[in-house]
Amino acid sequence: MATTENLAGGLPKTRLETLVDGVFAIAMTLLVLELRIPANAGVTERELVHQLSQILPKLGSIFLSFVILGMSWVGHHNQYVYIRRTDRPFLWINMLFMFFITLIPFSTALLGDHPTKRTAMIVYSINVGLCGLILLWHWMYATSGRRLVAPDLPDTIIAATRRRVALAPVAYALAIPLSFVNEWLPLVVYAIVPVYFILPGTVDRLWRSLSP
Amino acid sequence: MATTENLAGGLPKTRLETLVDGVFAIAMTLLVLELRIPANAGVTERELVHQLSQILPKLGSIFLSFVILGMSWVGHHNQYVYIRRTDRPFLWINMLFMFFITLIPFSTALLGDHPTKRTAMIVYSINVGLCGLILLWHWMYATSGRRLVAPDLPDTIIAATRRRVALAPVAYALAIPLSFVNEWLPLVVYAIVPVYFILPGTVDRLWRSLSP
Amino acid sequence: MATTENLAGGLPKTRLETLVDGVFAIAMTLLVLELRIPANAGVTERELVHQLSQILPKLGSIFLSFVILGMSWVGHHNQYVYIRRTDRPFLWINMLFMFFITLIPFSTALLGDHPTKRTAMIVYSINVGLCGLILLWHWMYATSGRRLVAPDLPDTIIAATRRRVALAPVAYALAIPLSFVNEWLPLVVYAIVPVYFILPGTVDRLWRSLSP
Amino acid sequence: MATTENLAGGLPKTRLETLVDGVFAIAMTLLVLELRIPANAGVTERELVHQLSQILPKLGSIFLSFVILGMSWVGHHNQYVYIRRTDRPFLWINMLFMFFITLIPFSTALLGDHPTKRTAMIVYSINVGLCGLILLWHWMYATSGRRLVAPDLPDTIIAATRRRVALAPVAYALAIPLSFVNEWLPLVVYAIVPVYFILPGTVDRLWRSLSP
Repeated sequence: MATTENLAGGLPKTRLETLVDGVFAIAMTLLVLELRIPANAGVTERELVHQLSQILPKLGSIFLSFVILGMSWVGHHNQYVYIRRTDRPFLWINMLFMFFITLIPFSTALLGDHPTKRTAMIVYSINVGLCGLILLWHWMYATSGRRLVAPDLPDTIIAATRRRVALAPVAYALAIPLSFVNEWLPLVVYAIVPVYFILPGTVDRLWRSLSP
Repeated sequence: MATTENLAGGLPKTRLETLVDGVFAIAMTLLVLELRIPANAGVTERELVHQLSQILPKLGSIFLSFVILGMSWVGHHNQYVYIRRTDRPFLWINMLFMFFITLIPFSTALLGDHPTKRTAMIVYSINVGLCGLILLWHWMYATSGRRLVAPDLPDTIIAATRRRVALAPVAYALAIPLSFVNEWLPLVVYAIVPVYFILPGTVDRLWRSLSP
Repeated sequence: MATTENLAGGLPKTRLETLVDGVFAIAMTLLVLELRIPANAGVTERELVHQLSQILPKLGSIFLSFVILGMSWVGHHNQYVYIRRTDRPFLWINMLFMFFITLIPFSTALLGDHPTKRTAMIVYSINVGLCGLILLWHWMYATSGRRLVAPDLPDTIIAATRRRVALAPVAYALAIPLSFVNEWLPLVVYAIVPVYFILPGTVDRLWRSLSP
Repeated sequence: MATTENLAGGLPKTRLETLVDGVFAIAMTLLVLELRIPANAGVTERELVHQLSQILPKLGSIFLSFVILGMSWVGHHNQYVYIRRTDRPFLWINMLFMFFITLIPFSTALLGDHPTKRTAMIVYSINVGLCGLILLWHWMYATSGRRLVAPDLPDTIIAATRRRVALAPVAYALAIPLSFVNEWLPLVVYAIVPVYFILPGTVDRLWRSLSP
């Protein structure tokens, strides 16, 4: 535990990672609490199939949120490979990040219950967009003046990561005006962003070129 | 943290394990939220016993799912003894695996509420079968060309593990047509598979013969 | 990770500990979901105080279960100080232990809703007693022939721990016949057992005398 | 695991930290279960906006509790940088701390449902105040006679941490009589305390002056 590196900035980073991982694991698992079929013993097979088909939009919104949570977790986790220590303001940036992560099950339920409502789309976009924005702030705070990273971390990695992290909140901010054009357009944004992040990107290539 | 081994493939494996363990712990504990006795102060002892006896099928489905979750966790955990690093596609195979793990409490509630419905059996089989199938993909991805494992991992271990991991999804796929023969047959499959996995198997024997 | 010690028995013990800790943390936190005051805006201060006073028995049962969960966690954790490795049967003893741990929120809700019903007391006693019994099996399996502990672990520690671990299930088994004498007697047992375990005991003294 | 340092006091501190982190992660994530919009498909956009505006006080109480939980977690975590080992009474001080942490989602729901009721404010203040008080006891127990900390931990750090930790319970105790003066005054206390703790304080300055 309390090694010199961990203490350098006053606070060890390992327990923060444990807390963040716990919050992600729970938020991911709570999503499913939205899925419910009434426990009616008198229901026929056909009716049960019908009830299951009716929760498919909910299952879709849960899957989307699961992917977005996964993406945010990977984004957070990638930053920590470079982050060496923490300080008090950084800890509270993490707290704010976790707060909006814990709200995702609520926004997902709202979107699952009202898939065609613009209000639900906007709330969802704000929630997910704020998660992305705080993650960007998280990276900029840690790397500004190499505050919490290694002093020799190359500028190219800092800039490539910043561009990559910035993409998600920009896209989710765009989803809001798009919802006024057509109520289904934001869903297209939600589907494209994760695909971009899941495909191995610039950061991976840089990483490999720098690994021994 | 960021040791050379961890960074080799770009992403450390320890935090992924923490996230997966968290998701399993929560899914296992959420199962019990299905068990409910109405809080009626005027109930007699006899009525309470009756109400408890009525949730026994639910308790059975919870126990079955707990064992299947345990089995999946052990399977995942056994693979990580050999897996040395991760990469981005592998991370997302894990995410997909976790997604279907988080759905198990839903499928269990469905089966517990409708134990005699073929629809519930099929949904449950698909859910549990997909968990097994993704775990097989997980192993094949990691070992194909020794991508994420030690370069000297013996072929015998790779093949024995693959056969062992493949067994569960094959059995659960079989449960679906069997449900058309007789509605109780799938339950027999569900009961036999865990027993096979809990008993010390080929992998353990191989392991012991290779340990110093 | 996969150090020689961890692999000796085939399976590393650290991830099992993470899973168990997760299950305990969730079971402990889910207890509180039982506490509910209806969200009625028109309620007066006096009525709110009355509603709060009515959930005091529930708060009591939650506190009792929290202490029992804490006690079980400490008991499990104390055994792992000596346990060096795991094997497949041992893993499944742990799974069974966790299954009954996850049922404690259900039994607690039952006892909180029906504090004067013998049936609720018996269900609670069986649940808690089985947790203790499996913990005893856990220790006996690990130490029999020094299977999973250090070969030089003194007999005195093995026997003292066994006696200490055996005490809880014996006491909880006693609570069942006592409930037929008087419906409040089991509560006395439930209150005394944790006090015995919280007070520093024989094991601690032995431990200190053996520490350098 | 079981290194000499960990065993010195009889019980390793790492698993205790895992349990505490898990309880915090779950309590933080469960807060959001309070946020609910009825799933009425026939609702208009305007009505949905109205329903969302009505849960804003709840969102406020959830945010407050999230910050208080974050603050308590940081406080606990800061103490563990200095704490080297545990003993049985210390473990149970931690259990008591966790018990009141798990009650915070309940008190938060009560305050969110009855934001203008003095009773709700008092229950909330007692809950949060007890968390702070136990954290103070936690520090005083660990440092009294340098029981669980390094023998050379400077008196200045012990005293500065004690003063800092004591501030929260004192402030929350003050919130109770203030609620009789004006029902909104306690909220002012709740808002000021976290701000004081989030701003880098005396402890950080001391820390930095002592770091190499």
